[in-house]
Amino acid sequence: MSPRIITGTAQPVRGITVGTAGLHTGTDNLTLLAMAPGATVSAVFTRNSCCAAPIHVARQHLHGPTATRYCLINAGNANAGTGAAGIQDCLQICAWLAQECNCAPQSILPFSTGIIGERLPMEQFRAALPELCKTLQAEAWQAAAQAILTTDTVPKLGSAAWRVADSPACMTGMVKGAGMIRPDMATLLAFIATDVAVESGYLQDCLRHAVDRSFNRITIDGDCSTNDAVVLIATGQGPRIDADHGEGFRQTLEKLCEELALMLMQDGEGVTRVMEVCVTEGLDEDECTRVAYRIAESPLVKAALHSADPNWGRVLAAVGAAGITTLDPQRLCITIGDTAVFKDGAACVADAAALSAQLSGARCSIRIQLGRGTAHATILGCDLSCEYVRINAHYRS
Amino acid sequence: MSPRIITGTAQPVRGITVGTAGLHTGTDNLTLLAMAPGATVSAVFTRNSCCAAPIHVARQHLHGPTATRYCLINAGNANAGTGAAGIQDCLQICAWLAQECNCAPQSILPFSTGIIGERLPMEQFRAALPELCKTLQAEAWQAAAQAILTTDTVPKLGSAAWRVADSPACMTGMVKGAGMIRPDMATLLAFIATDVAVESGYLQDCLRHAVDRSFNRITIDGDCSTNDAVVLIATGQGPRIDADHGEGFRQTLEKLCEELALMLMQDGEGVTRVMEVCVTEGLDEDECTRVAYRIAESPLVKAALHSADPNWGRVLAAVGAAGITTLDPQRLCITIGDTAVFKDGAACVADAAALSAQLSGARCSIRIQLGRGTAHATILGCDLSCEYVRINAHYRS
Repeated sequence: MSPRIITGTAQPVRGITVGTAGLHTGTDNLTLLAMAPGATVSAVFTRNSCCAAPIHVARQHLHGPTATRYCLINAGNANAGTGAAGIQDCLQICAWLAQECNCAPQSILPFSTGIIGERLPMEQFRAALPELCKTLQAEAWQAAAQAILTTDTVPKLGSAAWRVADSPACMTGMVKGAGMIRPDMATLLAFIATDVAVESGYLQDCLRHAVDRSFNRITIDGDCSTNDAVVLIATGQGPRIDADHGEGFRQTLEKLCEELALMLMQDGEGVTRVMEVCVTEGLDEDECTRVAYRIAESPLVKAALHSADPNWGRVLAAVGAAGITTLDPQRLCITIGDTAVFKDGAACVADAAALSAQLSGARCSIRIQLGRGTAHATILGCDLSCEYVRINAHYRS
Repeated sequence: MSPRIITGTAQPVRGITVGTAGLHTGTDNLTLLAMAPGATVSAVFTRNSCCAAPIHVARQHLHGPTATRYCLINAGNANAGTGAAGIQDCLQICAWLAQECNCAPQSILPFSTGIIGERLPMEQFRAALPELCKTLQAEAWQAAAQAILTTDTVPKLGSAAWRVADSPACMTGMVKGAGMIRPDMATLLAFIATDVAVESGYLQDCLRHAVDRSFNRITIDGDCSTNDAVVLIATGQGPRIDADHGEGFRQTLEKLCEELALMLMQDGEGVTRVMEVCVTEGLDEDECTRVAYRIAESPLVKAALHSADPNWGRVLAAVGAAGITTLDPQRLCITIGDTAVFKDGAACVADAAALSAQLSGARCSIRIQLGRGTAHATILGCDLSCEYVRINAHYRS
């Protein structure tokens, strides 16, 4: 049975408290996530060669000998492109927070999202941290999911409950992401917590696997922004996951990540519809992924999708441009919704109005059969709208 | 001395006549380019695996034993995604035209641009061809440059005159391209003629070299659409190009291709400004090209450019996402116009209004020094506007 994810609300997780406060602005844009001692933490970080200061610091703290106790997230300023000074700022903030919380600075993982290239407002951090620590409570996920946002329009969170043998277990996650039409340029931050007890190496394997099938399926070439991170915390206050119960845990994690990734797409800048691009019958997963990205990234396909125009010729051109030199167009099949539009090397007779109707909902599907093998891959894409251009042309003004 | 290209008008080329006629619509969208016997012809075709019927036919005719005498171009219908029937249509049209012109069908190179997936209006072709042949004249380049357009807004042509020893030589070219923000999805067609006499292999080398430094510098990953082609004709009615005079010919060809490519960008769909992305100090040309494309293709960089927003953080993120894992951000330098914005791992102090002014003209430049070596590459990109989305969301309606 597939795990059921409840989205929009969040169940508290035993061993986790969260709190929010405001830097300079009237709204809360500073979030603290605290975990009780004994938690196991895994994370996946951006592979961007110019990654932000907090990524350097969080990676170092996570992989050092000190157990992680806090995640600190600020929205509005990415602390990226800030060089050695940015790293110093980040370490200073960890030191201040450590003093407030009476813990080691190395037990704090810092995360930032927002404008690149500006220094953090240090005095405002110093002023806000004491208040932030006082707001920690188990029930504040909703406020936290709001406080981590930048140009997102809605908080994005979800929870799942399942049973490990006879014991109840739960998992809750929140995510933010702005320019989700090209997530490699935006910052994707996700924080997921579960009350089960999981061995550290296994936790990392599960997270990597789930991210590859969710957040990395909406990301171009597996690239990330300067600040991307996905964090998974297992507090160990619920049942223990061993070999017998691993499957339920993995499935729940993967499903929750998929749902959070879908929410990201739906709240993408200027997005009016999400397209699932499913490529099958490839020689290997790599070529399927390349074809799917080529389609999902094509501005022409995306613009046509925006007006529900079934201009499948652009899909064909994208398939042909994916670099599979031995592709045989005679064996290729393109399906929009449930209607084949290209088969046996030529257009199928199809009713344009009916095709357009298949594209005009909030979700639609484009399926490509390559006729070469048995591999497959699915990517989520979205339409390209004037609203996207407007948001990104004037993000700073 | 760099060759001087006169754009906007076209000098007739000895041995070349052109003519235009209309298929179905009121405006001319059918073009014939005829060359006197003895011409040498080279072409570069799309590498798209799903290339259009006319590309198959033109490639076969060009590489067959029959000398090329005609290029036939129709705009509005790409004859792509039309399978074996599309190839039959194309061969039939060549046969009809051959009858009219009293030549072998194999001496005709067909080209199409427009909607993918629809069959050509055959009866309209049959009706238009006799009239088309009667319109051939040396002076009609301007009308032809107009007739090959699809969503382009202006005809794009240019001419150059130079001397080979003491003899005058000339070269004239026309080009069309629609979705020039992503030319790999649009159709780029260019026809260039010169009156010099050039040996066939040398002509092909010169064309490949010039295309790599012009049309392929505005194209993503060297991909092309289903229909892309660049044709170069040397009629041989002017002076002969030998080893001593090759350089002037090559330079003229390269410069003309560069000017035509720039005109394509300037007339790109919804384009308000063109950016030159120049990447230097790379280990090799390949990594410079990858970084340049990553920037020029980034929707976030392009949207910021549209509003002349000097949001160089997006440029930094694009550089970091180009997959150079050994990149050292400390050695990276980013310059907008003539102002360094990122250096020594951190932001430079710069006046935002002055920076914005550097981005607000019709041309602007972004320069990246990778600090790794001596290789370099330059790519032309452009802004992303609502107008682009509007055009491409409603291309067929």
